Amino acid sequence: MIQLPPPLNPPVRTLMGPGPSDIHPRVLEAMGKGTVGHLDPYYLRIMDELQSMLRQVFQTRNPMTMAISATGSAGMEAAIVNLVEPGDPVVICVNGVFGGRMADVAERAGGQVTKVEKPWGQVFTPDDLKPALHAARPKLVGIVMAETSTGASQPIPEVSQLVHDAGAMLVVDAVTSLGGMPVEVDGWGIDVIYSGSQKCLSCPPGLAPVSFNQRAVDCVLGRKTKVQSWYLDISMLASYWGQDRVYHHTAPINMTYGLHEALRLILEEGLAACFARHQRNHAALRAGLAALGIQYAAAEGCQLPMLNAVRIPAGIDDAATRRQLLERFGIEIGGGLGPFKGQVWRIGLMGYAARPANVLVLLCALEQLLAEQGYAFAPGSSVAAANAVYAQG
Amino acid sequence: MIQLPPPLNPPVRTLMGPGPSDIHPRVLEAMGKGTVGHLDPYYLRIMDELQSMLRQVFQTRNPMTMAISATGSAGMEAAIVNLVEPGDPVVICVNGVFGGRMADVAERAGGQVTKVEKPWGQVFTPDDLKPALHAARPKLVGIVMAETSTGASQPIPEVSQLVHDAGAMLVVDAVTSLGGMPVEVDGWGIDVIYSGSQKCLSCPPGLAPVSFNQRAVDCVLGRKTKVQSWYLDISMLASYWGQDRVYHHTAPINMTYGLHEALRLILEEGLAACFARHQRNHAALRAGLAALGIQYAAAEGCQLPMLNAVRIPAGIDDAATRRQLLERFGIEIGGGLGPFKGQVWRIGLMGYAARPANVLVLLCALEQLLAEQGYAFAPGSSVAAANAVYAQG
Repeated sequence: MIQLPPPLNPPVRTLMGPGPSDIHPRVLEAMGKGTVGHLDPYYLRIMDELQSMLRQVFQTRNPMTMAISATGSAGMEAAIVNLVEPGDPVVICVNGVFGGRMADVAERAGGQVTKVEKPWGQVFTPDDLKPALHAARPKLVGIVMAETSTGASQPIPEVSQLVHDAGAMLVVDAVTSLGGMPVEVDGWGIDVIYSGSQKCLSCPPGLAPVSFNQRAVDCVLGRKTKVQSWYLDISMLASYWGQDRVYHHTAPINMTYGLHEALRLILEEGLAACFARHQRNHAALRAGLAALGIQYAAAEGCQLPMLNAVRIPAGIDDAATRRQLLERFGIEIGGGLGPFKGQVWRIGLMGYAARPANVLVLLCALEQLLAEQGYAFAPGSSVAAANAVYAQG
Repeated sequence: MIQLPPPLNPPVRTLMGPGPSDIHPRVLEAMGKGTVGHLDPYYLRIMDELQSMLRQVFQTRNPMTMAISATGSAGMEAAIVNLVEPGDPVVICVNGVFGGRMADVAERAGGQVTKVEKPWGQVFTPDDLKPALHAARPKLVGIVMAETSTGASQPIPEVSQLVHDAGAMLVVDAVTSLGGMPVEVDGWGIDVIYSGSQKCLSCPPGLAPVSFNQRAVDCVLGRKTKVQSWYLDISMLASYWGQDRVYHHTAPINMTYGLHEALRLILEEGLAACFARHQRNHAALRAGLAALGIQYAAAEGCQLPMLNAVRIPAGIDDAATRRQLLERFGIEIGGGLGPFKGQVWRIGLMGYAARPANVLVLLCALEQLLAEQGYAFAPGSSVAAANAVYAQG
């Protein structure tokens, strides 16, 4: 007895959660273009162009720059399992969900993991790291640049200096930051970096851009043991992405189309203009939320432009408010994870979602839902405050 | 200095290689539909529907049936790394590329791997397996049902009986078979099975359907060590696909849309009709190739309908012929892998590609290219032979 569901008919959403972000129509159109073979000369050209564009967005010349055929978390796993061999000392910085995940991944790879922990929403200073670097003498240090669970922005250059002075390699999680704020792989000396397609790159989820510098590549090539994951083994992937074009796995052709167009959009706009747009919309949203008395979870000065984690006002029903945002206004925002569950909303302004129409409609909808729950504020104040920011240009 | 490639403009291809296969326009349209969040109530419904349809195609009631967020090779890795702990004895049957890959994956998972080997193009009999089962006392046996590198079809039921009599679990690679020929997970007692979206399911590459029966789930839940891959850890994935909907990774929304529509197409047609269509088009192609004197690489009686691996006639230039098929006719077929490189063409009739128009145009094009290289045959004979098969209905 065949059970056949109805055809797809997804509701129209404004995606302002922690990802996926709103997708530009040109990217959706690219996703549906005709599939070609994974060794078709046309597809090989698309791969070359994708690599070239990824290098520009990562600000690197690393030859070993590509997209892993899976989501951002597989990018994390690729970074770790290629570098870590059983028994290797590893330091992971944990101040949110994704640092914790990286420590778990490193332990599963057999690493001797030292976690350096800070309360959620705070970021690491060099002094936080020095004792662990001294005690563990790690092969690598992993850190999240933009903690999607807390909205905190981790400065990378000074951490990089410290890690390299200690002789370790630096692995950076740029899942949420890439495409929304400066990420300078070569300039900052990042050894391995990974990201995801569905945040500020504004492509559907399914690909994980990564880049390995020469030191990291040498480390992979000099391993005593095989990389524990066949699928994520960078030395094999390099033969497909490189000149040899050796078949490894069947690449996700249409996902690659989507990312190709998404990267074209970013480079058309220009990186600096793209980052400024994220910052401007973040400032407008922040001003609007401030007019409602809503506070950020991350400390002043380290708030991410693309992921605004804010405290839910006292007396406001978290789940009901998010549900009504979705059902009545078609807007998705994210709830809190872990200790922030029920405490925090996560409002994404990522990629194509970082635009005034999104900021303003969210503030209008929030005003409505807060007023219905008896929350006191001056009506219209949030929109006025946001518009005042936009008026400054 | 920004380097911006031109917009995507993929050539129109007829995909008759080893995958990806031709994609039905309805699937491409689904790929480009508006992205929703990975916890959106609409998406959760789509996941439920996808699971229900996968169970129908796998012919199983296994609750643990889902799509891994990566390509078919990651499905293989998921099957192996969830079951295998360091030191576990494992038997892998190797008669082509993909059996060899499974052995590599199992070794990387720490398994004590015994390979049972047969020449490429041949399949395993119970007698081939008995000595290894007796000597190794394996925890599991891995076997490829449809070897994409050789076009050989492995009977599963009798292998299953033997493996279970020896107390082991059976892991089956159904990457190429699923959707193109009967695959009866419950009926045959398969413990773990995996596939890929881009073969007979006729969806772009990027997802790997898997199913674990209760015995396999109990094995995963009873592990002494963590699954070495965080990304592929079935126990965590089950919390997202199950009632709890616990966030694990960000699902590839639009890929899921594509697979949803692809499965709808198969179930609309009906499994039996779909398998008969694959068989009918295979028979027509085989008759056409026979008229040209072209032989199959796999033995009579174990030739796959959806993957026709055939010997390249003497004097015919492999690479030039395939290049001209692509450039002049827009048709992709596959070359040989490993020992079959330069010896064999791999002609896919997978999913939407398994239709008379594809078979006939390929035969016409092949006749043309073979004639240009001085190969002797009766002009029009291949098309006539194929049409004779179609005329039988």
